[in-house]
Amino acid sequence: MSSSDIFIGETIGTAILILLGGGVCAAVTLKASKARNAGWLAITFGWGFAVLTAVYTSAPLSGAHLNPAVTLALALKKDGIEWGDVPIYWGGQLLGAMIGAALVWIAYYGQFHAHLTDEEIVGDGETRAKAKSVEAREKGAGPVLGIFSTGPEVRNAVLNIATEVIGTVVLVLAVLTQGLNDSGKGLGTLGALITALVVVSIGLSLGGPTGYAINPARDLGPRIVHALLPLPNKGGSDWSYAWVPVVGPLIGAAVAAGLYNVAFV
Amino acid sequence: MSSSDIFIGETIGTAILILLGGGVCAAVTLKASKARNAGWLAITFGWGFAVLTAVYTSAPLSGAHLNPAVTLALALKKDGIEWGDVPIYWGGQLLGAMIGAALVWIAYYGQFHAHLTDEEIVGDGETRAKAKSVEAREKGAGPVLGIFSTGPEVRNAVLNIATEVIGTVVLVLAVLTQGLNDSGKGLGTLGALITALVVVSIGLSLGGPTGYAINPARDLGPRIVHALLPLPNKGGSDWSYAWVPVVGPLIGAAVAAGLYNVAFV
Amino acid sequence: MSSSDIFIGETIGTAILILLGGGVCAAVTLKASKARNAGWLAITFGWGFAVLTAVYTSAPLSGAHLNPAVTLALALKKDGIEWGDVPIYWGGQLLGAMIGAALVWIAYYGQFHAHLTDEEIVGDGETRAKAKSVEAREKGAGPVLGIFSTGPEVRNAVLNIATEVIGTVVLVLAVLTQGLNDSGKGLGTLGALITALVVVSIGLSLGGPTGYAINPARDLGPRIVHALLPLPNKGGSDWSYAWVPVVGPLIGAAVAAGLYNVAFV
Amino acid sequence: MSSSDIFIGETIGTAILILLGGGVCAAVTLKASKARNAGWLAITFGWGFAVLTAVYTSAPLSGAHLNPAVTLALALKKDGIEWGDVPIYWGGQLLGAMIGAALVWIAYYGQFHAHLTDEEIVGDGETRAKAKSVEAREKGAGPVLGIFSTGPEVRNAVLNIATEVIGTVVLVLAVLTQGLNDSGKGLGTLGALITALVVVSIGLSLGGPTGYAINPARDLGPRIVHALLPLPNKGGSDWSYAWVPVVGPLIGAAVAAGLYNVAFV
Repeated sequence: MSSSDIFIGETIGTAILILLGGGVCAAVTLKASKARNAGWLAITFGWGFAVLTAVYTSAPLSGAHLNPAVTLALALKKDGIEWGDVPIYWGGQLLGAMIGAALVWIAYYGQFHAHLTDEEIVGDGETRAKAKSVEAREKGAGPVLGIFSTGPEVRNAVLNIATEVIGTVVLVLAVLTQGLNDSGKGLGTLGALITALVVVSIGLSLGGPTGYAINPARDLGPRIVHALLPLPNKGGSDWSYAWVPVVGPLIGAAVAAGLYNVAFV
Repeated sequence: MSSSDIFIGETIGTAILILLGGGVCAAVTLKASKARNAGWLAITFGWGFAVLTAVYTSAPLSGAHLNPAVTLALALKKDGIEWGDVPIYWGGQLLGAMIGAALVWIAYYGQFHAHLTDEEIVGDGETRAKAKSVEAREKGAGPVLGIFSTGPEVRNAVLNIATEVIGTVVLVLAVLTQGLNDSGKGLGTLGALITALVVVSIGLSLGGPTGYAINPARDLGPRIVHALLPLPNKGGSDWSYAWVPVVGPLIGAAVAAGLYNVAFV
Repeated sequence: MSSSDIFIGETIGTAILILLGGGVCAAVTLKASKARNAGWLAITFGWGFAVLTAVYTSAPLSGAHLNPAVTLALALKKDGIEWGDVPIYWGGQLLGAMIGAALVWIAYYGQFHAHLTDEEIVGDGETRAKAKSVEAREKGAGPVLGIFSTGPEVRNAVLNIATEVIGTVVLVLAVLTQGLNDSGKGLGTLGALITALVVVSIGLSLGGPTGYAINPARDLGPRIVHALLPLPNKGGSDWSYAWVPVVGPLIGAAVAAGLYNVAFV
Repeated sequence: MSSSDIFIGETIGTAILILLGGGVCAAVTLKASKARNAGWLAITFGWGFAVLTAVYTSAPLSGAHLNPAVTLALALKKDGIEWGDVPIYWGGQLLGAMIGAALVWIAYYGQFHAHLTDEEIVGDGETRAKAKSVEAREKGAGPVLGIFSTGPEVRNAVLNIATEVIGTVVLVLAVLTQGLNDSGKGLGTLGALITALVVVSIGLSLGGPTGYAINPARDLGPRIVHALLPLPNKGGSDWSYAWVPVVGPLIGAAVAAGLYNVAFV
């Protein structure tokens, strides 16, 4: 696999992953969305099938890691990828995640606008103030960071790291034992389906406390985009939490790779 | 593949697609349906498994494009289908979509009637006026265009085109990289399952703003049938929007085919 | 395949199908069930995965028709089963459906009791009158025929037959084109998964008007058991409707087999 | 397969099974969880995909029984496992189930705390009394045994055993006919997916009365952990019921293995 294939594949794949994963959060959260309040099951299946679509599409190019934690585990794994390739994977993943988050903003532009302002977009691109009572204005609107990045329900660094480590161990162990293609250095076609269903499982079972980042790029890339986008009333980007969904998944990947090398090889 | 196999396969397959896809919208929308208010998850899985059923059934005959945007992409793709076959695919798809929409009307005839009128159908085909208060009559009934065609939550041509382009790029890229059979000119059996789950994903993640047409025939065929059917109180067919779900998906298909030819071949 | 393998396989398979299919209806309907009011999505996935489980289990023995309409279509299909075997399949299917319905009654015995009476079952098998207000007693309880057999929302024989014919055509066409094993006379292992997801699709999309029998044994067998079981306050068995879910699916199977022989062979 | 591979595989696999299965119950039950009140469909898919993840991960090591009832059936099956290996499987399963339950407690530590106490965990590990009215304190909080072990809606040993036997017969029969790998002594990769969907089916269709243990280790291991954990206000461990989800599944496994040996071999 050439370096450019790796970089392009990871960029395209992670962009699709975050477009669809962030998309389902936008769909369920924002005003003027047909999917509003569709619930937790929609979010978990939405993220799982985002993995499926993204891995299928990019597997032929780069092996579809789409997650710095998976890349780390595949570098730590016996007969895994070269350490020199790790920055290429990570770079593509972070760039792709930022592109994906920007695409969510484009696809849901009118919904962000309706959710965050008191104006309505009309046909020629102008806006029109909506006659809304204060009560209606306040009901349901609010900050939108949750469409971009994860956040904890109970804010405690030790607990939040623990939850992210546990979730990532499950993900990476399943990828290492069943998701890999013949080269052993990336995900294959059957692995896309398995990994997708494992991600649904982690979402349903371990998503409650922190929103299951289990992927540093999935969280950091969109958080940067949230900070940069010209969204009115968007609220803060919660940078004090940003290190948790980066460090936790990397620790989890190392634990899983170690367990794999000892018990499964 | 003979021209008649293509035409018959696309007609049968698209008829099944719209019968099942329109069917789930009828099931969730109409009065006197057991599935009423089953929610967005039912709609997105319903459309996804409609794709699965339709592609499986028609794949042996025509390769199951069932979507003018997919056909366009397969003509633009290197070593794809002949341009001369494109009108045969498109013709079958539009005819099939109209037949499918008519079958929804037949399958849900009693539900359309209960939803749109104040009469009840009784055993011998006659009707009986129902004693309903004005309040009950107005609660829940209403125009039924959404069972046939898509419509935007925020009406703005540029935004709506953008959303449809993004959704179709995801669909077509996944079909081109993973959905094709050995000939590379249509979908195969494994591709049916992958494509179906990708369509669930697009619905969950990108369906919020416009209802994800991502298929010109899926929108135009049923809209024509909506205009023609003798449904009382059916409301308008919203022809001013009709070009968006035709043009957007075709642009998306061209973008995806170009990206595929450059990055994946 | 021997006659005894056919009969035993169809009996076991259809018993599992109705145990699980009727089971999900009991789970969602009855008082004192953890799944009460789980909704239409639970019912449609429950029936679909009932098909999956039942077909997987009985496919090695009999090819897992589990449906007189499928058996009829496989007799009408070119190079299908012998007509002389049809009564063996049908007999096993009807017997299995009755056994399955009885097993639902056993598995949910306490729930039927709590739903239909004012007494509570206590540890030693005795019952204890529950102190319930009239209001509480009436809220939610009621006839339980829907756990056993289907019924229409709008009662009109022509419409109800039409809906059942359309649903069965979709089912049988998908089975004939994709569900069969190498012998062409029954369902195979991959066919189990495909058929299961097609049944979810038909439920979501075409189940609204009549509850999608699409299988004469699925409706008739449990209806007989409903008539025989010593359930208090169970209500009538609605025999005037019983012919519709028998005749409709058989017509649908014949239409689908004819279409298949003409267009797909 | 060596004894240590069996023991390690069953321990890791059952730990993942209970981590994810108990996790979804915690996610849906506890305060301060994003998935709170996600419903029965989330629970049944959560448990099913827990099986998928756990079987995939441990199948290469031990064949992924993860259930003493499955192990018993594979010992009773013709050409099955050695009886001398049964205690190794069972030991790993019980140990793994206890580890998994403890991991649920760690992953949801903050949620258990919020649910069971009137204090809030703050950043430095200290707690802060929350100002809550008595009404708010009582709404939604309560004993948490249901996160660890099953319990009946109608408490009657004969009925509860019957329901568990019926559910386990369906599970084990499907495993024996379709889930096994080439050795016939454990589950394979395709078997993981089939078994997972069968478990979703059993949950949806037969989970209403007793919560479908269908696995002695799944119930007993977490119950022991519930008794040991220092959770405040946790309520009792309901030891009077604990034998039912052990004995019922073992009877069901024996019945299914007998049926398999007679009818399917």
